[in-house]
Amino acid sequence: MKELFVWFNDALVPTRRASLQVGDLSIQRGYAIFDFFKTLDGRPIFLNEHLDRFFRSAERMRLETGLSADVLRGRIDELMEKNQLPDSGVRLTLTGGYAADAYSIDRPNLVISQSPLTVVPTAELPVAIRLVSYPHIRQLPDVKTIDYLMAIWLKPFIREQGADDVLYHLDGVVSECPRSNVFILTGEDGDGHGGGLSGGLRGGHGGGLSGGRLVTPSRNILHGVIRGKVMELARRQVPVEERDMTLEELYAAKEVFITSTGKHIWPVVNVDGRTIGKGKPGPLTEALNRDLYRCVKGA
Amino acid sequence: MKELFVWFNDALVPTRRASLQVGDLSIQRGYAIFDFFKTLDGRPIFLNEHLDRFFRSAERMRLETGLSADVLRGRIDELMEKNQLPDSGVRLTLTGGYAADAYSIDRPNLVISQSPLTVVPTAELPVAIRLVSYPHIRQLPDVKTIDYLMAIWLKPFIREQGADDVLYHLDGVVSECPRSNVFILTGEDGDGHGGGLSGGLRGGHGGGLSGGRLVTPSRNILHGVIRGKVMELARRQVPVEERDMTLEELYAAKEVFITSTGKHIWPVVNVDGRTIGKGKPGPLTEALNRDLYRCVKGA
Repeated sequence: MKELFVWFNDALVPTRRASLQVGDLSIQRGYAIFDFFKTLDGRPIFLNEHLDRFFRSAERMRLETGLSADVLRGRIDELMEKNQLPDSGVRLTLTGGYAADAYSIDRPNLVISQSPLTVVPTAELPVAIRLVSYPHIRQLPDVKTIDYLMAIWLKPFIREQGADDVLYHLDGVVSECPRSNVFILTGEDGDGHGGGLSGGLRGGHGGGLSGGRLVTPSRNILHGVIRGKVMELARRQVPVEERDMTLEELYAAKEVFITSTGKHIWPVVNVDGRTIGKGKPGPLTEALNRDLYRCVKGA
Repeated sequence: MKELFVWFNDALVPTRRASLQVGDLSIQRGYAIFDFFKTLDGRPIFLNEHLDRFFRSAERMRLETGLSADVLRGRIDELMEKNQLPDSGVRLTLTGGYAADAYSIDRPNLVISQSPLTVVPTAELPVAIRLVSYPHIRQLPDVKTIDYLMAIWLKPFIREQGADDVLYHLDGVVSECPRSNVFILTGEDGDGHGGGLSGGLRGGHGGGLSGGRLVTPSRNILHGVIRGKVMELARRQVPVEERDMTLEELYAAKEVFITSTGKHIWPVVNVDGRTIGKGKPGPLTEALNRDLYRCVKGA
């Protein structure tokens, strides 16, 4: 395979030349932010949303990007032109820079790298997964920092529990997975808010939704771009609520799925050993994945 | 200044050549451990303790060091021989390595770097400092990971509060500062445990200790090497307790100080705007700093 290029600050260089001196605050103190979007057929997906979040993360962590969104867009274009990798993941990493005292923010280092996409989302749902819950909240959860210490550290635990990923909660209130947001379709019957259900989905899927609501946590989470899109798409079909959600509520849900830029929508059929709904992906999960795929193709 | 050398895995190279590709798990996911010791007059201080902790941290984070303590010692000797920097700080950094998926531990990268010591501890106490408390517990606090995200992020808050450093607590139970352990000398009168006080210190300082106990938190902390030495030295003079300690207890203490490899002992005279004891370094703090200095000179 030909070597890919990356932006290393103001230079477009081969990947092997993009390296940070060990004095960088990311290596010294784990202090850096990033963002990640995909390109499909050479087109960046939801780029505005990702760049907005990137600049917000930088500001929250007091890191000077040193460039405007327009300049950044130009560099991303140039990178894509150079690498010719139509289906890809693009990662922007902004670190705390080289501080003489190894403890202070200095002039940040910015790296923009591109890699082949390992999974290309389709209109079909991927294989359903199992989650195991764990009591944890990410530090500064609303900022996309590089802090995945617990996520990596928990991998053997996840495996031992026969699960595919971990779901963080605190005192039984669910927040998120390390790299995904979580949604549930509640099992309760309609109570007057079900008006939105009279649309095509119910007809198409034999009334499987019967008055449920789509609920996703509002606090202690990273506000995922796909999370936002899914809420937007879902509102056409069911009432959507952003609020605290307990593990008990999640166990009792009719459908559970997680969302992320890499995965789009992954159905969840088991959490902490308990079967969710009928133990297979539900009709709303399927419908939203299809709608999201269409939306991405048109993005 | 001449360029210093560092060990970058198996090669002794000039600092500018010690750089990590951005795919390293420290830069991608904040996943790395380190340890730090000082050398005085060309002699590593408490090296055994630091190497023990380094290997423990590595094991806890499932990082293969790929070398024995003896080989590591040899490399440290070689590094010191090469750099000729008698008073220095030596940092061992072990990262998660280059993982193709940017989410899995791979073969770790090991960097051993040396830098001039900015503060050389003496028998005299440094200037007293002020702390401000903040509700936080480090992730995996007993492991020396590179996770200092909150510490760096809180720097403006610390400054705004007119403090010099932050003291973490959870629900009012004190744990540690980001890079130091905390001790208090309680103000209570003797209750039969004060036998140890009949030694030289009481005579020398006019009975200033009057039955207090030296208390340091036992949980949710990094077990500092200097913390251990201070407890050892203090036991000759006062009862020492490792246990939970509340902020209220700390506010009411006769003496408060923090300990670290870099600073040895720093007296604390104000916490959250409340004056500690008489608002100046106390006799036990002074005595322990002097004892520690002697111990280090003989280490």
